[in-house]
Amino acid sequence: MNTFGELFRVTTFGESHGAAMGAVIDGCPSGVALSADDVQRALDRRRPGQSAVTTGRNEADRVELLSGVYEGKTLGTPLAAVVRNQDARSGDYAKLATEDRPGHADRVWRERFKHRDPRGGGRTSGRETLCRVIGGAVAEALLRRDVPALNLVAWVSQVGPLIAPPPPPGLTRAQVDAHPTRCPDAALAERIEARLLEAKAAGDSYGGAITLRVEGVPAGLGEPVFGKLKARLADALAGIGAVTGVVWGGADLEEQLTWPGSRFHALPADGRPRDVYGGIQGGLSNGEPVQVRVLFKPPATLADHARAGRHDPCILPRAVPVVEAMAALVFADLWLSFLARPHRS
Amino acid sequence: MNTFGELFRVTTFGESHGAAMGAVIDGCPSGVALSADDVQRALDRRRPGQSAVTTGRNEADRVELLSGVYEGKTLGTPLAAVVRNQDARSGDYAKLATEDRPGHADRVWRERFKHRDPRGGGRTSGRETLCRVIGGAVAEALLRRDVPALNLVAWVSQVGPLIAPPPPPGLTRAQVDAHPTRCPDAALAERIEARLLEAKAAGDSYGGAITLRVEGVPAGLGEPVFGKLKARLADALAGIGAVTGVVWGGADLEEQLTWPGSRFHALPADGRPRDVYGGIQGGLSNGEPVQVRVLFKPPATLADHARAGRHDPCILPRAVPVVEAMAALVFADLWLSFLARPHRS
Amino acid sequence: MNTFGELFRVTTFGESHGAAMGAVIDGCPSGVALSADDVQRALDRRRPGQSAVTTGRNEADRVELLSGVYEGKTLGTPLAAVVRNQDARSGDYAKLATEDRPGHADRVWRERFKHRDPRGGGRTSGRETLCRVIGGAVAEALLRRDVPALNLVAWVSQVGPLIAPPPPPGLTRAQVDAHPTRCPDAALAERIEARLLEAKAAGDSYGGAITLRVEGVPAGLGEPVFGKLKARLADALAGIGAVTGVVWGGADLEEQLTWPGSRFHALPADGRPRDVYGGIQGGLSNGEPVQVRVLFKPPATLADHARAGRHDPCILPRAVPVVEAMAALVFADLWLSFLARPHRS
Amino acid sequence: MNTFGELFRVTTFGESHGAAMGAVIDGCPSGVALSADDVQRALDRRRPGQSAVTTGRNEADRVELLSGVYEGKTLGTPLAAVVRNQDARSGDYAKLATEDRPGHADRVWRERFKHRDPRGGGRTSGRETLCRVIGGAVAEALLRRDVPALNLVAWVSQVGPLIAPPPPPGLTRAQVDAHPTRCPDAALAERIEARLLEAKAAGDSYGGAITLRVEGVPAGLGEPVFGKLKARLADALAGIGAVTGVVWGGADLEEQLTWPGSRFHALPADGRPRDVYGGIQGGLSNGEPVQVRVLFKPPATLADHARAGRHDPCILPRAVPVVEAMAALVFADLWLSFLARPHRS
Repeated sequence: MNTFGELFRVTTFGESHGAAMGAVIDGCPSGVALSADDVQRALDRRRPGQSAVTTGRNEADRVELLSGVYEGKTLGTPLAAVVRNQDARSGDYAKLATEDRPGHADRVWRERFKHRDPRGGGRTSGRETLCRVIGGAVAEALLRRDVPALNLVAWVSQVGPLIAPPPPPGLTRAQVDAHPTRCPDAALAERIEARLLEAKAAGDSYGGAITLRVEGVPAGLGEPVFGKLKARLADALAGIGAVTGVVWGGADLEEQLTWPGSRFHALPADGRPRDVYGGIQGGLSNGEPVQVRVLFKPPATLADHARAGRHDPCILPRAVPVVEAMAALVFADLWLSFLARPHRS
Repeated sequence: MNTFGELFRVTTFGESHGAAMGAVIDGCPSGVALSADDVQRALDRRRPGQSAVTTGRNEADRVELLSGVYEGKTLGTPLAAVVRNQDARSGDYAKLATEDRPGHADRVWRERFKHRDPRGGGRTSGRETLCRVIGGAVAEALLRRDVPALNLVAWVSQVGPLIAPPPPPGLTRAQVDAHPTRCPDAALAERIEARLLEAKAAGDSYGGAITLRVEGVPAGLGEPVFGKLKARLADALAGIGAVTGVVWGGADLEEQLTWPGSRFHALPADGRPRDVYGGIQGGLSNGEPVQVRVLFKPPATLADHARAGRHDPCILPRAVPVVEAMAALVFADLWLSFLARPHRS
Repeated sequence: MNTFGELFRVTTFGESHGAAMGAVIDGCPSGVALSADDVQRALDRRRPGQSAVTTGRNEADRVELLSGVYEGKTLGTPLAAVVRNQDARSGDYAKLATEDRPGHADRVWRERFKHRDPRGGGRTSGRETLCRVIGGAVAEALLRRDVPALNLVAWVSQVGPLIAPPPPPGLTRAQVDAHPTRCPDAALAERIEARLLEAKAAGDSYGGAITLRVEGVPAGLGEPVFGKLKARLADALAGIGAVTGVVWGGADLEEQLTWPGSRFHALPADGRPRDVYGGIQGGLSNGEPVQVRVLFKPPATLADHARAGRHDPCILPRAVPVVEAMAALVFADLWLSFLARPHRS
Repeated sequence: MNTFGELFRVTTFGESHGAAMGAVIDGCPSGVALSADDVQRALDRRRPGQSAVTTGRNEADRVELLSGVYEGKTLGTPLAAVVRNQDARSGDYAKLATEDRPGHADRVWRERFKHRDPRGGGRTSGRETLCRVIGGAVAEALLRRDVPALNLVAWVSQVGPLIAPPPPPGLTRAQVDAHPTRCPDAALAERIEARLLEAKAAGDSYGGAITLRVEGVPAGLGEPVFGKLKARLADALAGIGAVTGVVWGGADLEEQLTWPGSRFHALPADGRPRDVYGGIQGGLSNGEPVQVRVLFKPPATLADHARAGRHDPCILPRAVPVVEAMAALVFADLWLSFLARPHRS
């Protein structure tokens, strides 16, 4: 189904080459400062055509707010937003009406849904994620008001065999956006860019990983036993198109899992919880930074098929705001859930 | 919250040292063959005291069915099951009332819920997972009736640095249960057992991985875009206590993510989808075996604290039926969802 | 919240004088014949300005489908529809920004939501119901495909003191629409019209009742114990703005409740269930016509306030398609729920 | 399905002659004072065998709390409660295995669920409502802590043709319970009792109405547009077995609906909202007493069938705590929802 969240909910709609994509956000309290510009800025970070390493499809992706905001603030009513599809060269995809692209969802989707819109993947297109970014922008507006210390940032931490070292605390989105690859390690970013241009020329592609780090998380977010912060993030992140794994803790978690518990759990000198927990214990945020690595498959649109449509040789740079949006939706939802129940001793 | 699933739902309850643990399963159709023995057999695979490598806590974990079954078949009404807590030596935990165990959820739980049952971790105890096994047993009864070809099996694929090779297709639970470690590779199983006995003696522990493989999955299960099979499994599995990662595809997925797309997506000679997809494309099962690796932290109960209570040096062997139960709940739920909507061309 | 339904869901949005109203329908199977014209026809039955007895506000209420339909059939993906607000003379409502209209939701809404859109009642406007009609049109398209014998018709059965006799079985919407009052009793319809024109001239208003009758309902729809057909309809109908009561059975149910059970339950000569049950027993449809009477308060916009904006002296004629839409949503949802669980002996 | 509520949820289970009935309450915050005695007292008001005008079935209905409470206060974890079925003379019902009782749900339930427990109606028995009373007792414990001014009281306002005048404000449950009929008008109560004893002797039965009045409701409870207080109460109350109507406002609402709006909405001299609104405007509580009348069919178990089992000639006296319980569940749920969203200007 196409609704995400319990108390703070986003419902998305739209086929890649239909009239429009959009989202309805329900459950946002009133009085949250929000404008179409806030949402537009979020979309601009995801939109195609940003650099040489992304798809050539050119979509302005202009958002219009239809409801839920009045005089610059949310009304506590559903907020609907739409983005018209403009650069929809369906002709490029004409032959897809009868042919399933290997590695894509075409076949299984066709068998399940029987009647489908073959143009550009229809609802299975990565374009669907722009709706999530709309939802994330509203979630972030709420979090800015209610949890201003929150610093929710994702970055490209791996492309193919190229793996970035962990950035220092306090990383900002501006620092991430400084390079088109969205890898905050300047030297590695250059190597990644070169690798991707090479892949693009060859009709090839790369996967890798995005790391999400959320600093300033209030302790205690999560709803055990089936709404743990861990499970909600896993649900949110694994639901993104090309994601093939979600791993908490630091970049070397797989290595750390080979250790005995006495080493794994050994307290650092400062007595604070170890970062092996990824900021989550007992399903609740523990007040430390929440950190999770999201693994992405390489895009399956290759060679001829890549030329037939338009594609990204690597979706990671543009997936960064999508990962952030899904995480923001989870935190906004769990924040409202936290407020809903006044636990007392 | 404590309910999992949309159409096939389990609601769990119980504190580790309270009167009882239990579950209510709602949404199971009528006419499914089910007895208390079926549920008991599932619980017996999870219960403590099964071998030298698990906890010494001795709980018979006898289940009683209170409703929902009549003359050996489900009624289509809620099925409630309870397991009384017997071996509740709360005295062992007396000091925990005032002291938070490092690496445990004690502190964050106490800060969030203010009033808590400190005995044995209360609701945060791994004992909570027996309720999930009850739910899984009912889900499997439904799947046996409606999807008899399904073969849903999990096994211990890694303990600390010891990593098992992939088992051949058609692996059975009997083969997995043949060794107390639940590692189906006989030689590695011996080494794992030795390592765990050593850790137990030293008051130490190990994490690792459980791999889940589901053969015979009908193509098309999943509800895009927010109820994809991938997301539902991630939610289900990441919600298990010590889980710290969920990765689709084969054991070498992290290695495969360093490859270019042309290699990653290259079709095998037989033209079938690659196992790098873990049996899921576009969020739907693609008819191939669904395979996912679940990463577990080592238990945090060590040394003195281990001696104060009773503990497993490695929870992986006993977590195998829990992983299977959560997966069965997901498949049962998505199966009913599949039936609910007659898609046509 | 603004989502209705479990498996077949509608999410609505829009303020009376904002940019647009709209709805997202999720969970409709693919392959259901549907066009924008189908939805438009439903909206035309609800839109203002249809006759002398309704509001003078003139809204074309043109619907645009943004997603979910391709080549005249649903895709199994979310269907989004929007209607632009055109005749939004907010100036008429300028003074409402600071003044609460008596009998309206203005005060409680303002106190709850703190920040509100005062223009025309904002989200509390009856205009919100057009979104429900969109949802109902999609629900009816599904029901036409899957339950073609269903005949779901509502009519105005009471206006103030004027009460219509029960119409014969097989009543059609065309018969109901034959008179602008939507009272199918021709003689009473004339008296109602005269009464309403008089009230309009006097700045006064009337309430009354709409009766809903659904013939051809498959037996067994409903999900006990909290999703009974009765409860789902009550939820759906009591959620319409001015509704103040929901009563099953025939027009004389209140009279019949004074009878002893031996008379109330006495079987008719033909041995079929009595219509006192309103077609529902044990929370499930019993195969007989489902019948329910929906009581409506008179509109609270009177005299000066009526002149400041534009209003209906009686909302009943225009509420008929809204009652039908909410009922259709319930039946579509319970129909999918019925399919989801293959009960067997 | 068998779960009611969004944030404060009750899940019920149990067949009339199975092992036990019970409920799991999820979402109650921690620190709420609650004991098994609190729940027992609520059950004692509903249990059979209280007086000559109720069923002769004798069930002690002793409740046991299995989880969720520790040292006299809730833990913020699911609270499970069970009541063993004791006086289950299934023999009385033996013939029902093959015979459907007229006026009962037997036939439709059998056709829908195929396999059913025929003993005493199984899940369709009115005995199911004891689970709702358990849920209501927990909801009331929360409301006592958080909304102590709330006074939620229901009473028998009509039995057959005998209709009670409205009681004065501040009515208490003790006053209602003072007479076995639960009609607070002493004179009418005597007449009702006589009428019911007569009906019982004749194997006959009566329906009527229960009125619910909730004083001290905070203004603003409800979640428009589909979770209005009105809709949530309608859902809750119409879901009770024999309920056949739900009407807001005073006892003479049907009469008031014949009035023009100018009279219906005329403000009383004190300027407070009219009680015709039943304490609800725009779907939100308006700060005035919430009042709703719940219409009940006469029991269908008559004559021979009445003698075969054991029955109430009128379920209204025992339904009073059920109505209160369902209402308390709605208010607790909407209260948490109110807290979840900090609306600001």
